[in-house]
Amino acid sequence: MDLIKGFPATSQDQYPLNVTNIIKHSVRNYGPQEIASRRLDGSMFRYTYADSYERMQRLANGLKKLGVNVGDRVGVLAWNTYENYEIYFGVPGMGAVMLLLNLRLTPQDLAYVVEHSGCEYLIVDETLLPIAHAVVPLCPQIKAVVVITMPGKKMADVKTTLENTYSYEEILAAADPVCEWPLMEETSAYAACYTTGTTGKPKGVYYSHRDVYLHSLCIGMNTGMSVRDTCCQIVPMFHALGWGLAQAATLVGSRIVLSGMYTLDTLDTLSKLIVDEKVTISAGAPAIFMPLLEYIRGLDEKPDLTGVRLLSGATEPPVAMMKGFWDLTGAEIIHAYGATETTPLVTINRLMPWLEKELNEDQRWELKKKQGFAVGGLDVKVVDAIHKDVAHDGKTPGEILIRGPWITGKYHNAPGSEAQFTADGFWCSGDVGTMDQNGYLKITDRVKDVIKSGGEWISSVDMENEIISFPDVLDAAVVGVAHPKWQERPLALVVLRADAKGKVSADDIRDHLAKTFAKWQLPEDVLFVDEIPKTSVGKTDKKVIRADHHDRYSS
Amino acid sequence: MDLIKGFPATSQDQYPLNVTNIIKHSVRNYGPQEIASRRLDGSMFRYTYADSYERMQRLANGLKKLGVNVGDRVGVLAWNTYENYEIYFGVPGMGAVMLLLNLRLTPQDLAYVVEHSGCEYLIVDETLLPIAHAVVPLCPQIKAVVVITMPGKKMADVKTTLENTYSYEEILAAADPVCEWPLMEETSAYAACYTTGTTGKPKGVYYSHRDVYLHSLCIGMNTGMSVRDTCCQIVPMFHALGWGLAQAATLVGSRIVLSGMYTLDTLDTLSKLIVDEKVTISAGAPAIFMPLLEYIRGLDEKPDLTGVRLLSGATEPPVAMMKGFWDLTGAEIIHAYGATETTPLVTINRLMPWLEKELNEDQRWELKKKQGFAVGGLDVKVVDAIHKDVAHDGKTPGEILIRGPWITGKYHNAPGSEAQFTADGFWCSGDVGTMDQNGYLKITDRVKDVIKSGGEWISSVDMENEIISFPDVLDAAVVGVAHPKWQERPLALVVLRADAKGKVSADDIRDHLAKTFAKWQLPEDVLFVDEIPKTSVGKTDKKVIRADHHDRYSS
Repeated sequence: MDLIKGFPATSQDQYPLNVTNIIKHSVRNYGPQEIASRRLDGSMFRYTYADSYERMQRLANGLKKLGVNVGDRVGVLAWNTYENYEIYFGVPGMGAVMLLLNLRLTPQDLAYVVEHSGCEYLIVDETLLPIAHAVVPLCPQIKAVVVITMPGKKMADVKTTLENTYSYEEILAAADPVCEWPLMEETSAYAACYTTGTTGKPKGVYYSHRDVYLHSLCIGMNTGMSVRDTCCQIVPMFHALGWGLAQAATLVGSRIVLSGMYTLDTLDTLSKLIVDEKVTISAGAPAIFMPLLEYIRGLDEKPDLTGVRLLSGATEPPVAMMKGFWDLTGAEIIHAYGATETTPLVTINRLMPWLEKELNEDQRWELKKKQGFAVGGLDVKVVDAIHKDVAHDGKTPGEILIRGPWITGKYHNAPGSEAQFTADGFWCSGDVGTMDQNGYLKITDRVKDVIKSGGEWISSVDMENEIISFPDVLDAAVVGVAHPKWQERPLALVVLRADAKGKVSADDIRDHLAKTFAKWQLPEDVLFVDEIPKTSVGKTDKKVIRADHHDRYSS
Repeated sequence: MDLIKGFPATSQDQYPLNVTNIIKHSVRNYGPQEIASRRLDGSMFRYTYADSYERMQRLANGLKKLGVNVGDRVGVLAWNTYENYEIYFGVPGMGAVMLLLNLRLTPQDLAYVVEHSGCEYLIVDETLLPIAHAVVPLCPQIKAVVVITMPGKKMADVKTTLENTYSYEEILAAADPVCEWPLMEETSAYAACYTTGTTGKPKGVYYSHRDVYLHSLCIGMNTGMSVRDTCCQIVPMFHALGWGLAQAATLVGSRIVLSGMYTLDTLDTLSKLIVDEKVTISAGAPAIFMPLLEYIRGLDEKPDLTGVRLLSGATEPPVAMMKGFWDLTGAEIIHAYGATETTPLVTINRLMPWLEKELNEDQRWELKKKQGFAVGGLDVKVVDAIHKDVAHDGKTPGEILIRGPWITGKYHNAPGSEAQFTADGFWCSGDVGTMDQNGYLKITDRVKDVIKSGGEWISSVDMENEIISFPDVLDAAVVGVAHPKWQERPLALVVLRADAKGKVSADDIRDHLAKTFAKWQLPEDVLFVDEIPKTSVGKTDKKVIRADHHDRYSS
């Protein structure tokens, strides 16, 4: 990135963008605003921005007393509680880095992250102590563990095998309630999250204060969040900064609802919270919103959620789900896209007023499935294998490259990861998608799942969906297999309904595909199999398929 | 400002905040959005963001061909037209500085500004050529003058005494429609405005790209502006960046309406434009909104302006005016405060939901008169003479000090102006006001009009308003007069109704004041006079009063 120097300005450009200012200025204006949180015992806790701010200051002072210094990394293993919200501002506020630990990682991976980051302090929910018990012994540099105990419980009554443990509440009670926050250089790290790629070790993304400040403004701007909203933190706060909702809500002074501890098995409690607390904005994934919709369907009186915005990420939101919310409650599901490396907001799907007029209802729902347009502030490109922009025709796939103030420019201390960044500063997302003429992005594949044939790309996901739409097909998988002439050629595995076996041929499948795919894109081989190899979480395991068939086209 | 260095982050912190990205990203998403503009001949012109963007690129390329380089200052003497909107992005986009010239300054002051800034190029509306004819001969360094001619008019047909003149349209027509915008260092100047203080020479404020970018986000956030709004540029675009509305509207993709040329004598045309174009957000002053209200009062069918937000600055909005809009149309007048040195937004008056419940209707209207709360991102203090924070009780006056990313940190090349900045980076606004316990600021005086007595401040404006509320008083003025013991003591001049002369005594006035002022604050002398000295624009001329009475308490 070559920058040009213009004429000097007189503005206070040295004044740093600090996340601490978000809370400082918001408490000044929105002090009486409520924060409601489910506690770890399931009970509700309520206080105000002003109350919370005092506890953030106590936390910062208490951690200093414990030995935490500016620049130190403080690991956090916690659910979405008010204490975690306090940590979100108190820890980076004092100049330390909040290391958000994904409690779904293995103890070995967590220990790797703790070691790699040089983290010496840990804050952990009492309910998550079993994880700490597995991790801490692997990390000899840990100096102290602060436990967020169950409501009213003393540290002496907490069962733990760990040494040097402290009670979060006792630290706060003993600390000074006023903290002179340092003004941090805006390039200082505010927090760190580690990616959990399916290959290799977790890689560290260290978000600067500037990054998070600008991202919060971006979220606020693109959701239209305000002091009259009630924002519920559903996304785990250890997952890509909780998608930035808590900071953005704080920035605009929204009422905040924290969802506490929940799992896919306890979604009823979460659904009840959202309805009872009259939430107007939140973010989650179809895995959460589908059960929420079912919960609402079961209510005698449907809640009026007119104006409610539910940002949905992770996977494409089904039209039936979006329609269900709209028809039943008036709530809008808004598809959004990002990654740990992007803080995370990259695209959001809002319907432009002129498209509203041009498209019929079905087309509008189809459009809403797309990931949406790139938010202002980010450069987003869709490029082919030699990094040339593809046509914005909604058809030509390419890899998505992203650049901007809240995109990571590298991975922390990760030699060999430089290839994921271009010379002019774009992060190569590894996601493959199309851009239509209106600027809406649609993700279709991961780069590693795309079939590279003769310099062109074939979408394995599109082809799988098309095969599954054929009568009598139960499941399908398409992978690229190495080919001496074309680099790769598609191979399709197809599972047929029991009574259809022997009645459907490879040519039937190819003929069906030929309706939507070009001839050169059709799979060389179509194999009928009894089942598709799956990973432990039920996803198609393409690694296994590729290994099983790696020499099919070359031998 | 001492900054603390934390742990290094991995974010793309070197990616610069550039105003050019606002238009670049908005055109990507909002290309078909409309821009409607009154032209200089009164006719309407309509095109899209995408059309405008092409012309901005042509403008940048055309100016380069004319010899304009990165860092050069380009003076602009123009009304609120679509060409000026193009200049707003095209000129800074190519790396030059847009020098916004206040067409209401004298030719001598304008020449001073042009000379002081080192400006060598001028863009001027044909209707404003008479000003250019007076200014350019005083500025020998001017190399070229670009004229925005009346619609359809050729340069050859424009009457001018100037040399080296070029037609804006002809420059655009001859230029390449694609411009590779440079990525500017974010501390580079985007534009400059000169303050027009009543004393001394104009002083230059040079806004950086970073400043304007963050201010645009701030305006967008605090007004809730979106792609579904229609934003009308009423504030002259040469006045403190037009208060930032055009850039913020562009950022969020609002429909934009440009008001063209108007004066206080042609407000009917402006009012008609606002109603006809279904404007939903704008900014102006009571001097504009009062006639707009009268215009609406005169319409047979009152427009439904529910949800419309009209930001009002410059002077306190009268309750009758705010109520008038609300009752007649549903539009909300929103008081806001700022200055050339602050880009300009510092405070905005939105009613917090909890205050809505606490206050009765009259109290709510009274609150709406205040300047409002300091927007997130800015540090704002109200301090006494030794720069200690005053109580936030809504009563204790102090000077308002402001710090933040869109506040000027100095004046351009203005030796002697350093005293307006504190060591820790606050700009001393010269405005005096109070802060209430809810964080709402109310401006009461200018520092120079406050009476400094025995280390305390007495508000001359408050005292004048109180005297005028006394029956039979027509006008009043209060100034501080030098006093050997107390530094200053108040002197009141009072004009009585003709039939009351001789019937009201100085003690009557003092007794009246004693109901709301402390005894030590009461004026030493109360003089009954036939009239109060006024300036040419009808304001009380305190300089004259102070001069007339300078030795009253010391001789």
